[in-house]
Amino acid sequence: MEDKFFKVASIIFVMEIVIVGGGATGMKAASRARRRDPEAKITVIESSKWLSFSRCGLPYYIEQKVGNLDDLRKTPYGVVRDAEFFKKMKKIEVLEETKALEINRSKKVLKILRRGSEDELNYDFLVLATGAIPSKPPIPGIDSEKVLGLYSPEDADKILRLYRNGAKRAVVIGAGFIGIEACEALKSLGLDVTLIEALDRVAPTMLDSDMARLLASHLKEKGVKILTSTKVEKISGENELIVHAKDKISADFVVVATGVKPNVEIAEKAGIEIGSKGGIVVNERLQTNDPSIYAGGDCIETTNLITNEKVVAPFGDAANKQGRVIGDNITGGNSIYKGVIGTAIFKAFDFSVAVTGLNEETAKRYFNTSSILVSSYDRTHYYPGMGVVRMKLIFDSNSRRILGAQIIGNGVVDKRIEVIATAIMNKMTVDALEDLDLAYAPPYSPALDIVVTASHVVKNKFEGLLNSIKAEEVKNLIESGEDFVLLDVRNEVEAKNIKINIKNTINIPLPKLRERISELPRDKLIITACPLGLRAYEASRILISEGFKNVKVLEGGLPFLLTLI
Amino acid sequence: MEDKFFKVASIIFVMEIVIVGGGATGMKAASRARRRDPEAKITVIESSKWLSFSRCGLPYYIEQKVGNLDDLRKTPYGVVRDAEFFKKMKKIEVLEETKALEINRSKKVLKILRRGSEDELNYDFLVLATGAIPSKPPIPGIDSEKVLGLYSPEDADKILRLYRNGAKRAVVIGAGFIGIEACEALKSLGLDVTLIEALDRVAPTMLDSDMARLLASHLKEKGVKILTSTKVEKISGENELIVHAKDKISADFVVVATGVKPNVEIAEKAGIEIGSKGGIVVNERLQTNDPSIYAGGDCIETTNLITNEKVVAPFGDAANKQGRVIGDNITGGNSIYKGVIGTAIFKAFDFSVAVTGLNEETAKRYFNTSSILVSSYDRTHYYPGMGVVRMKLIFDSNSRRILGAQIIGNGVVDKRIEVIATAIMNKMTVDALEDLDLAYAPPYSPALDIVVTASHVVKNKFEGLLNSIKAEEVKNLIESGEDFVLLDVRNEVEAKNIKINIKNTINIPLPKLRERISELPRDKLIITACPLGLRAYEASRILISEGFKNVKVLEGGLPFLLTLI
Repeated sequence: MEDKFFKVASIIFVMEIVIVGGGATGMKAASRARRRDPEAKITVIESSKWLSFSRCGLPYYIEQKVGNLDDLRKTPYGVVRDAEFFKKMKKIEVLEETKALEINRSKKVLKILRRGSEDELNYDFLVLATGAIPSKPPIPGIDSEKVLGLYSPEDADKILRLYRNGAKRAVVIGAGFIGIEACEALKSLGLDVTLIEALDRVAPTMLDSDMARLLASHLKEKGVKILTSTKVEKISGENELIVHAKDKISADFVVVATGVKPNVEIAEKAGIEIGSKGGIVVNERLQTNDPSIYAGGDCIETTNLITNEKVVAPFGDAANKQGRVIGDNITGGNSIYKGVIGTAIFKAFDFSVAVTGLNEETAKRYFNTSSILVSSYDRTHYYPGMGVVRMKLIFDSNSRRILGAQIIGNGVVDKRIEVIATAIMNKMTVDALEDLDLAYAPPYSPALDIVVTASHVVKNKFEGLLNSIKAEEVKNLIESGEDFVLLDVRNEVEAKNIKINIKNTINIPLPKLRERISELPRDKLIITACPLGLRAYEASRILISEGFKNVKVLEGGLPFLLTLI
Repeated sequence: MEDKFFKVASIIFVMEIVIVGGGATGMKAASRARRRDPEAKITVIESSKWLSFSRCGLPYYIEQKVGNLDDLRKTPYGVVRDAEFFKKMKKIEVLEETKALEINRSKKVLKILRRGSEDELNYDFLVLATGAIPSKPPIPGIDSEKVLGLYSPEDADKILRLYRNGAKRAVVIGAGFIGIEACEALKSLGLDVTLIEALDRVAPTMLDSDMARLLASHLKEKGVKILTSTKVEKISGENELIVHAKDKISADFVVVATGVKPNVEIAEKAGIEIGSKGGIVVNERLQTNDPSIYAGGDCIETTNLITNEKVVAPFGDAANKQGRVIGDNITGGNSIYKGVIGTAIFKAFDFSVAVTGLNEETAKRYFNTSSILVSSYDRTHYYPGMGVVRMKLIFDSNSRRILGAQIIGNGVVDKRIEVIATAIMNKMTVDALEDLDLAYAPPYSPALDIVVTASHVVKNKFEGLLNSIKAEEVKNLIESGEDFVLLDVRNEVEAKNIKINIKNTINIPLPKLRERISELPRDKLIITACPLGLRAYEASRILISEGFKNVKVLEGGLPFLLTLI
């Protein structure tokens, strides 16, 4: 959809495009603009020397899965994307190690600082792709030399240098996904790692408590010490640091990963509108309140398509998409960027952790919310490499519209979260998931994928076939001294391998349930349990068919309970 | 949604349910009915002794990835699902090695043959889950002892026995997914394998020619000899078989995998309606024209939700879903099974091959059809284990509604096909794919996933930024002696590793294109090419910006062309 007037006009003058920021958004906008307009003068200002640098790859560089920092700024075909590359390949002028100082909007001039001297660049269109800056909590001692971020290539190199100089103990502050990725990287180097989080759980903005418990349990299995609900009061020491929290933790260095905030300094100074979430306000075309100035990437606010509220969404895929939209719009196109639904994924040791849509805590603020926990194998149980995936599906109780999902496990997680993300974009209901025609073959999924099973579980619940109880409720029963039986229907080997320390637990393997049913009291609540929940459900149907009146199924499987008590 | 009258009625009489067929559909219907109705008398008739047997696992048993046939009929928690299991666990009576002879619909009686004597079973509801039977082409000699199927556990054991007795050479007839899975299994045992297909390509009902070429090329790389457009005239010999095709091929045994057809014998004899595709006709509740008789699984016809035509869809996931729907409906529920869109996946050595919706050949019969070929890495190029995925996306030229996709490669294929399948179920357009908020992190996908890229490529094409040419058209140009330049923009190492034997091929690595542009003729058609298509697109934009008028991009990347010429 070309603007014809624009095309005619562009013959007459050579358009000048200035882009502040050489990250994903900036370079994508520049490249896209170049592909659409061979003549425009395109200049990119970048304060570092790292162009199109994949910040997301830093944990893997520390882990030494990625051998070289340059690998994180190469094209897929192996060419380093430096200023020379952009100049020769794309006729894009990149001013590296150059600072954008000030925008003069009326004159359409950007003042810059380059090699010690100031200069001015004229623009027809200015693109602000200034990214984010790590938010540093106000902790005394946080500016110590051995307190690092994990944001820039230099950060990563500092961490590796400390490691090579003999560092053995690290403290990571902040259990968001970057913090957790840092833990994995540092553990892979053999360090002793303590993860400190001020909120009450790991990955607190992504996961609800139930799912966060599973992740924390896996991190602990991998040797990460976790302190949640823990504030760091100060960091002292020089050679050896002391992190003062509830306890004093000694460390050779500290990594702070407490999130980022939009870098809006230059925009704000120029009177560009900043939103309540701290990012630059843009319309769907990614245009700011100044029609000649566009903005995209980590420095803007975008729309959450479920709540319709503004959010900051500093993700690599969004940054790329936004760069493309801007590249279109500053060269006469008319593209829009709609927003996000909050999909994200990260790797945590053997687990993949993924979310889409709203978590239950957030969803409750907007909707009459229900949720269900479902667990499943990720492929046919006889095919090698099988893993487990555990899903929390969040939906509107009335319309049954899907609002969000969290999936976690050592099985294939990304596939399932993307199906749910696509379902959410299409406002699908939980019920409609069962109609999806997914790709079954033994190496890829069980005959009924967890996405379909989740739909069945919700229906079973609403039809009264499944009367489930969440682990939190079971804990409440235990704490209030309620009399109930936990019926563990695992087989003998499973029951021996992982013991359950709950009073009144009875182990009867499912296949023997009918013949041993007389061992169970008929006057008490019976809660059936197994690792995934399938056998527990089957057991509940057997008990009810045999006249038991008060039977509940532990939702999602035993790990939800065993990580709680 | 319970039928209240039914509930009341069920107190008065014990319902008798008879199910013919103990496969996925039959046992799922039985189990689901039991969970909903503890009292019903449920009897399953099965001609073999294999209940709930995962036929899809047979190739992996031959390959010895699955150690034991019993693994293919175990529950995920390790219990063999035999008659005893169903009796004790689910109070379901299974009559193994029993044949259903005849349905007396007016008396509601099923006549059976069991241990040499006939018997009769009364039913209130009869479920036909009779599955499919392998379709044997009328080839003289096909009944030889060493001509086997790959359908029953016995087939698999016969193949393994022949292998253990020294068989070295096998011929597989039929290049559908079972035939290809058989090739992989037999090659893994070290056999010499020839695959013969009557149609002009491998996986002919799933893949269009372009995608089939890529698969064939991979199969050949793995040592499978492929003969397409080849009819087997007869099979002769006893100890050593001779397969008479264009050539005579010696083999120690032959595997016939030429598809299956619905097993409708007993239904047809009883006057149950059979459709034009050869399957039992059912409504959305999976009820036949006799309201007391339901049918599901490989023996029925279901609806293709894109064309609204009846199809036979013998897939394990559909069988399971349909069993559940039947289990509901014969116990007073009201569930429906909507149909399929044709999603399927299989593993072929290092490749995954997946389809959803219509292929282009079929789509053209119903829609004004366009298609696009897109290739991409499956994750960030610096993350270990990266693979390639190649996608053909088929869509309606007018509405841009997505009609189908084929994805193939050594990268992660299943995720992308399921996203597209979900998109098709929601009648999404190609354009809307770019708005999907997918799960990006380096181990899982590139920042822009191929699903999003495909949307961009289609838009580039429609906006005139991308002028692409398909490999078939390039071949036509070559054959008609047209003068053009194939501009190979790979780097020197790549160009040396895989040579292109096309006249007038010029290799200029993309980063050097601007400086070496004078080497290219301005008066000829220039076709830019690279392995994936990304660099070729970039090259085309550079040439056009430098005033070249006649530039096209080889769509989808070099392999589409190199497998054709």
